[in-house]
Amino acid sequence: MRNIKVVVGYDGTDYFGFQYQPEAPTIQGELERVLSRIVKDEVTVYGSGRTDARVHATGQVISFRTAGTIPIEKLCVAMNSLLPDSIAAMEAEEMDESFHARYSAISRLYVYDILNRDVPDALDSRFCWHVRHPLNVTQMNESARPLLGVRDFSSFACADRDDGSPMRDLREIGVTRIGEHVIIAMRANAFLRSMARIIVGTLVEVGMGIRPGSDVERILEAADRRQAGKTAPARGLCLKEVEY
Amino acid sequence: MRNIKVVVGYDGTDYFGFQYQPEAPTIQGELERVLSRIVKDEVTVYGSGRTDARVHATGQVISFRTAGTIPIEKLCVAMNSLLPDSIAAMEAEEMDESFHARYSAISRLYVYDILNRDVPDALDSRFCWHVRHPLNVTQMNESARPLLGVRDFSSFACADRDDGSPMRDLREIGVTRIGEHVIIAMRANAFLRSMARIIVGTLVEVGMGIRPGSDVERILEAADRRQAGKTAPARGLCLKEVEY
Repeated sequence: MRNIKVVVGYDGTDYFGFQYQPEAPTIQGELERVLSRIVKDEVTVYGSGRTDARVHATGQVISFRTAGTIPIEKLCVAMNSLLPDSIAAMEAEEMDESFHARYSAISRLYVYDILNRDVPDALDSRFCWHVRHPLNVTQMNESARPLLGVRDFSSFACADRDDGSPMRDLREIGVTRIGEHVIIAMRANAFLRSMARIIVGTLVEVGMGIRPGSDVERILEAADRRQAGKTAPARGLCLKEVEY
Repeated sequence: MRNIKVVVGYDGTDYFGFQYQPEAPTIQGELERVLSRIVKDEVTVYGSGRTDARVHATGQVISFRTAGTIPIEKLCVAMNSLLPDSIAAMEAEEMDESFHARYSAISRLYVYDILNRDVPDALDSRFCWHVRHPLNVTQMNESARPLLGVRDFSSFACADRDDGSPMRDLREIGVTRIGEHVIIAMRANAFLRSMARIIVGTLVEVGMGIRPGSDVERILEAADRRQAGKTAPARGLCLKEVEY
């Protein structure tokens, strides 16, 4: 069997997330449908992670095994000719048999995009959260520091998360103003369900001044979802890069 | 009566164009619905031009008259709270009574965005035309030159265009490569129906080498739509600016 890795991008707006659901459009569902047709055999697709409904990706990585003979350099073109415009295959590579999109990943980089100005941007509305109140980026950056390292992120995880360890290793978190946008970049070994969006929602409350910066450390230590801020909307979040 | 000018932006993908249609979603229809509610009276909206179905705008200008008393500095916020995410009001200004969004306009700037690389971009698919074949931008630029000035654009107009003069004054046309994008900017006093997209479609055929550069002048002189290239897809076109 060949073991193939593909980097894919998607506009997640119209999908119920990455993970396959029999009755709803999903990224995995679309990829499996298209790949099965190309290799003329049933294909199971593994993703580096399961992005939530309406979350985007420019660097999601998938892998699948197949006996199909399509030349690797023709795979992306074949996929793109069958995929909807909102999903694109960008790079395909033949891997050795030990590679697995999910289990071989070392870290994931998510970026959250906030439009921080008075008026919304109609052309960018699918890809950012419009926050009118001016955000204090310095304050947001400082208050995020206690999140770094191997910590218990229970306070920053969706209540219905899978069982399993709430420990994650957050390796980078940075808040940057770029023109009228405030960009929050987060790299971790892995993320709990909704973790990136709950961190963003909490930092935005700090940036608006409705929560003191010192709150973030207190919330982390409480290990209680109810202490953290609101979950930021999915539309602003994008999986940018997976490291192997 | 007050005479009000508003700059609006929209993602045109899900609209049947600017112009009101009783049974279909249109930009004018959405704006009139929202403004009528805000000023509690029926409002007629005039646009600088009628963008086609699926064409976008970041600098469309509208004007309307009203006896409503909403303060001008609150109008955009009120509009944005009622408009769908795909339409945004960006600036509002009180004008003297002679101003008219359409008749006072001196020129319109349209920009067409082509993604010129092997693979599509899922997050940008609503806003650009994906052309895989490498485009010769120098050749496209040179061949566009005969279009400049006051010319008969019959060859570059939709067959079902309104009667009236086919003469338009094309004041600027430039083709620029920016990374993996090829951007075509066109400024004219006004555009015939589909004119911008037929010019783009023809220049792309030149850039791909399937038409000689000298063809553009010949097509213009033929005054015959059948001589020009295919109409480029609406998704890549955006009304950027209207000059008064």
